[in-house]
Amino acid sequence: MNRRTFVTSALSGGFTLHPLLNLPAAQAPKKLRNKGLTKADLPTPALLVDLDLFEANLKIMAEHCRNAGCGFRPHAKTHKCPDIARRQIAAGALGICVATVPEAEAMVGSGIPGVLLTSPIVDKPKIARMVELARKGRSVMLALGHPLQAELLAAECDRRSVNVDVLIDIDVGDRRTGALPGEPALELARQIGKCRRLRVRGVQSYAGFASHVSGFAAREKASRGALAKAVETRQRLAKAGFDTSIHSGGSTGTYNIDSGTLTELQVGSFVFMDANYRVIGGKNGHPVYSDFHPSLTVLTTVVNATHPDLVSVDAGIKGFATDAPQLPEAKSWEGLSYRRFGDEFGALSAAPGAKLPKIGDRLEFIVPHCDPTVNLYEKIYATRGEKVEEVWRIAARRETA
Amino acid sequence: MNRRTFVTSALSGGFTLHPLLNLPAAQAPKKLRNKGLTKADLPTPALLVDLDLFEANLKIMAEHCRNAGCGFRPHAKTHKCPDIARRQIAAGALGICVATVPEAEAMVGSGIPGVLLTSPIVDKPKIARMVELARKGRSVMLALGHPLQAELLAAECDRRSVNVDVLIDIDVGDRRTGALPGEPALELARQIGKCRRLRVRGVQSYAGFASHVSGFAAREKASRGALAKAVETRQRLAKAGFDTSIHSGGSTGTYNIDSGTLTELQVGSFVFMDANYRVIGGKNGHPVYSDFHPSLTVLTTVVNATHPDLVSVDAGIKGFATDAPQLPEAKSWEGLSYRRFGDEFGALSAAPGAKLPKIGDRLEFIVPHCDPTVNLYEKIYATRGEKVEEVWRIAARRETA
Repeated sequence: MNRRTFVTSALSGGFTLHPLLNLPAAQAPKKLRNKGLTKADLPTPALLVDLDLFEANLKIMAEHCRNAGCGFRPHAKTHKCPDIARRQIAAGALGICVATVPEAEAMVGSGIPGVLLTSPIVDKPKIARMVELARKGRSVMLALGHPLQAELLAAECDRRSVNVDVLIDIDVGDRRTGALPGEPALELARQIGKCRRLRVRGVQSYAGFASHVSGFAAREKASRGALAKAVETRQRLAKAGFDTSIHSGGSTGTYNIDSGTLTELQVGSFVFMDANYRVIGGKNGHPVYSDFHPSLTVLTTVVNATHPDLVSVDAGIKGFATDAPQLPEAKSWEGLSYRRFGDEFGALSAAPGAKLPKIGDRLEFIVPHCDPTVNLYEKIYATRGEKVEEVWRIAARRETA
Repeated sequence: MNRRTFVTSALSGGFTLHPLLNLPAAQAPKKLRNKGLTKADLPTPALLVDLDLFEANLKIMAEHCRNAGCGFRPHAKTHKCPDIARRQIAAGALGICVATVPEAEAMVGSGIPGVLLTSPIVDKPKIARMVELARKGRSVMLALGHPLQAELLAAECDRRSVNVDVLIDIDVGDRRTGALPGEPALELARQIGKCRRLRVRGVQSYAGFASHVSGFAAREKASRGALAKAVETRQRLAKAGFDTSIHSGGSTGTYNIDSGTLTELQVGSFVFMDANYRVIGGKNGHPVYSDFHPSLTVLTTVVNATHPDLVSVDAGIKGFATDAPQLPEAKSWEGLSYRRFGDEFGALSAAPGAKLPKIGDRLEFIVPHCDPTVNLYEKIYATRGEKVEEVWRIAARRETA
């Protein structure tokens, strides 16, 4: 399918072409103002964001950071969407974190400043692509956690005569990326210090294991324990004469724990929220973590109703990520349970006394886990009430490594 | 990212542009002969198909069907890839099954004949898109399982003066789509028979619940039980005067059970295979189902090696579908276990005596479940040994509903 077919058929259902979109995508305006387009017009399954809730989430995080005297550099691994990154920058974000080189390229290509690659890369072509972004004068930064990364990056920076800022990535317990706190991190910094094209700007520490701990007190303990190791290493780096202006880390689950310590939060999920985050519990002791609103849903259609006790909707394993234990939660419809029904289908059953939807009915579901669910779609329909205000491209999906 | 950036940066890593691909995608040759491109050049994670194994799988299925006197219409929900569909047609397939309208559009748009939409659609725009394909003179067929579907399709066919062939979808136990066997299916056929633009060509029955039953004898029992209901209904339809030339159904797990009964197999996974299918056991009583070869892998890179007991590779929840209980299995590397390590990472540990890979090493993994894993990627690198022979676009990914 070419891009024209893609845009027109996806948005219009190939039925009545939307006047603004009856164009090759390259000629279409960047902000697709969809006059008159409503949720009822969308082909399903469709990924929707509720703009009122999304904007409220952004405001809550921005205000929290302002009050806490902490910056935020939201993580684009959640949305992979320059339209969202632009809104985050406009709300006061210092920049944008990315997890992959294609995410970095998409963000930089859309004019997003302050792009930080938080994940390690160790092959020359990917490193060259990051250096190329810096060479073009864009503000990009890399987190380094292993001597090989530093060696490859320094060599490419020398070869191209490009300066690049880096953070020392400290492994505070995830065991996934980064140098160990203390001497190993210092040793890495010393190695980097010898590379004339690289400049240490501070540290990164991410405690993924703390972000989803249930109960605020337990989460606080886990996050503070992890942070302490990074703080101590940062102090040692400062003593050794390194620039340690930046301490980047944290998550949506620990934003109000970490903001007193970090200089910037790498929060991702807060813009969308999901069922997986809602169960971790709030600061007030409430079982639902409700600091942010679930703004992201998948719109589905009931496509089969042969049986009295269940109906089929058209979003299954390919429509909702399946990594989290939670299942999709019907929005605005009481007493429905969703279960997976294969790649393209979900089965809905109703609790006693609750009503099953009919064939042709449309239902929205809060997603189990936002990041990998967004990764299944090509675009997000930004809605206000029933109206589709904009269509945002998920420009940096995983596949282009 | 535009398509040019996509193709060039994805294939060259933005490092050394491949001469054939330093072009806008629209001008690039359809078969991208990648002279000299090898697996080592690919950005990871990358989806690979081993052409020797893939071609062997296709040959095994084609020969089985020829010997059994049964047709096959492979399911494109597995690959969403016209390049693969073309090879299936060349191997003797009657046509191609699809699960979504975008899949139908991508296949028809690539000149694939005999496209059968196996899933129900109940909204007017999607039905109009299918009728539009038929209006252009392409051979498309729809499976109908509910009166509403038939009503909407008939109305659109009347409006556009287009004739469309349909199958009666019979629910033989999945409870997911289709009319119940016997009288409900007959009633649906009678309704369709009254629509002058629709023509019943036979039945569809899919027993998803039988496809992954462990052990050949148990699987045979499950599939035969389900098939019997469809066979009986097909006979009643024939008696009532309907054309019942086609009985379409079956799966990779039951191909050699169903081929004596069905007129055509809707087999999907056999071209790739996956860990999820390999555990169901073979006809010979062997615990591994080895009728087909695992041709599909994800190529990853070790990007962290801070700890002596584990390393991180760059494919996680966004690189391998997580719906199946199986985990990715390292190919050509003994004694490694993979566990999920977040969206972008997997953790590898080694059994006693086995060796862990080093940072920068590249490893291939057999995927847990092929269909939803393919759905995570944009393209498949078709390889022979270390050489990348072609790059196939996964043209009909789920997102464009």
